[in-house]
Amino acid sequence: MDIYSVIMAGGSGTRFWPASRANRPKQFLKVIGSKTLIEQTLERVKPICKEKNIIIVGNQEHHDILDNLLGERQFVILEEPRGCNTAPCIGLAAIYLRKNGITDSPMVILPADHFIANEAKFREIILLGCRLAQKGHIITIGIIPTRPETGYGYLHKGAVKIEIEGVKVYDIRRFVEKPNQEDAQRYLRSGEYFWNGGIFIFTPEIILTEIEIHLPEVYKGLLEIEKSISESNYADVLHSVYQRFPSISIDYGVMEKTTHSILSIPGDFGWSDVGSWESLYALREKETDSNRNLIQGEKVFLFNTASTFIFNQSNQVVVSLGLKDIVIVNTDDALFVAPLKKSQEIKEVIEALRVKGLNFIL
Amino acid sequence: MDIYSVIMAGGSGTRFWPASRANRPKQFLKVIGSKTLIEQTLERVKPICKEKNIIIVGNQEHHDILDNLLGERQFVILEEPRGCNTAPCIGLAAIYLRKNGITDSPMVILPADHFIANEAKFREIILLGCRLAQKGHIITIGIIPTRPETGYGYLHKGAVKIEIEGVKVYDIRRFVEKPNQEDAQRYLRSGEYFWNGGIFIFTPEIILTEIEIHLPEVYKGLLEIEKSISESNYADVLHSVYQRFPSISIDYGVMEKTTHSILSIPGDFGWSDVGSWESLYALREKETDSNRNLIQGEKVFLFNTASTFIFNQSNQVVVSLGLKDIVIVNTDDALFVAPLKKSQEIKEVIEALRVKGLNFIL
Repeated sequence: MDIYSVIMAGGSGTRFWPASRANRPKQFLKVIGSKTLIEQTLERVKPICKEKNIIIVGNQEHHDILDNLLGERQFVILEEPRGCNTAPCIGLAAIYLRKNGITDSPMVILPADHFIANEAKFREIILLGCRLAQKGHIITIGIIPTRPETGYGYLHKGAVKIEIEGVKVYDIRRFVEKPNQEDAQRYLRSGEYFWNGGIFIFTPEIILTEIEIHLPEVYKGLLEIEKSISESNYADVLHSVYQRFPSISIDYGVMEKTTHSILSIPGDFGWSDVGSWESLYALREKETDSNRNLIQGEKVFLFNTASTFIFNQSNQVVVSLGLKDIVIVNTDDALFVAPLKKSQEIKEVIEALRVKGLNFIL
Repeated sequence: MDIYSVIMAGGSGTRFWPASRANRPKQFLKVIGSKTLIEQTLERVKPICKEKNIIIVGNQEHHDILDNLLGERQFVILEEPRGCNTAPCIGLAAIYLRKNGITDSPMVILPADHFIANEAKFREIILLGCRLAQKGHIITIGIIPTRPETGYGYLHKGAVKIEIEGVKVYDIRRFVEKPNQEDAQRYLRSGEYFWNGGIFIFTPEIILTEIEIHLPEVYKGLLEIEKSISESNYADVLHSVYQRFPSISIDYGVMEKTTHSILSIPGDFGWSDVGSWESLYALREKETDSNRNLIQGEKVFLFNTASTFIFNQSNQVVVSLGLKDIVIVNTDDALFVAPLKKSQEIKEVIEALRVKGLNFIL
């Protein structure tokens, strides 16, 4: 079985501002471990996927970073002229594979910026998913919820469809968009829901058929691109089609609407989308000192400080006195200080700074 | 009446670190208003004291700053080779005056780094003190306590000795060193105590006699210096005498021991020693925004932030989210973050950094 991996790396996440910026989003940062998140994503699939079978879909804006990442390696980089969410991104990879004669092999869709604790387990589950995808199913990995998170989509489980090697594989009744707090509480209590971690497996043929049915305009654009691949007008066609593409997720555009069989495999491999300074701090708890402080960077000195995360990328000496549950992110040109628990509100902060015309710092 | 002012500017306070440094202590910073604290102290006495009658006693380490401060102006600068607390500092100024034939005029001793809200009132009280000092009294200005402060010395009032122009002038029973919390509470409740704000008035003759009696070794050194004033060996003598001087305050060395008449005039002119970021924030409350935030510097952006003081001397953008009662002090090479209420603990932090060998940043 030849497995293809599609690493979605076009995100321009602002959640780790000011460490992350529009021109260097989270997936290109070393926020956990000694490698960037995208490097870790690449390493994670390598044991089950030939390097040349890996497609990174990124944004042209990050061309230099992607080019550096590639180096002498064999994987494919597809650069989108603009980010249009996951449906066009997945469609582009699927079209690229079909143009190269690959229609029936499983393609594994992976966000570039997630963290997975148990990589061996992850690969086992992916391999199982690939076998099912080859049989024509759309596979989604269901993350078992641990809190009433309102920031993720959910998968409403149906009956156990198959049990293989001790793993229960579920029918999916419904894709559920990000819920409010009350619904999230209910989903958590019921035990009937997974988090949608954005990991899918299907064949190019099946996903393209689904896109054709549910997103016909996108499909039309993809056909134009397909024709131009390896032609001199590829860049122009890509550019012009992407200007017309709607920005739409595969979840909303296809998964919520399809009547095709969708199965979900529980992904109990220690998943995190590393969505905020707070969740990063939680992930790195083992690295904290006896007062549960986490320091990344040099020249940081703590006094009577507890449960505080200091990320110092600048050359400044940083002194914290008497703080608790605070995050300090210090870079050469920007400083961010907040309670760890409020660090996810950075999204609104970024938006406000954009409105104030501070794009230069974002 | 010719009045002489002695501005004690040798302090190397660390309480405003990292805005203040050993080579630029608090008195040389613009922490309140558009002028440095020492400039404000100079301006404050000018209406009652000729410029040439003002003596600034500073530290040789700050020679360049002092030189700049002098510019084309007429006041006298005496530079101590090392800081030996207030007794040698005051002794040096007194010796300088005596050498210039001034023995019976009042000399007003003023710390360079205090803030006074009501300057007209201040001058009225100083003038009154000068008249009493000319009659041979040692005058100290008593600050009416507003909290059980353990960081100041106290003056234990006796009976009202004189009442002039509606101002009660008290005998002083005792100089009290910095009390513990319990005693400070008791002093505050009793109404029998003033804070010792470090403002004194006496004649050179009287203070030198007192130093001769209670600090004979210091007096001996002062005589050596006196002889060398205007001689070519002045710098050498000053240096060698200062190496031998003990580091001792006028309070402990003289005031606590003298049997000479000490009177205290209540100084209700809005005094502050600007002793911490917290007290500075309180002093500048009028400048805060509707959420009681105080910002000094550019490029500071606050979100859901209250009662927070951000002092940005660097070129960085500073973003605060969800903070309350925090001080952020940001300079080119150092960043300090603490709860405002704990900001006075900076002294211990500085000491710890010194032990760690981080003098370069102090």
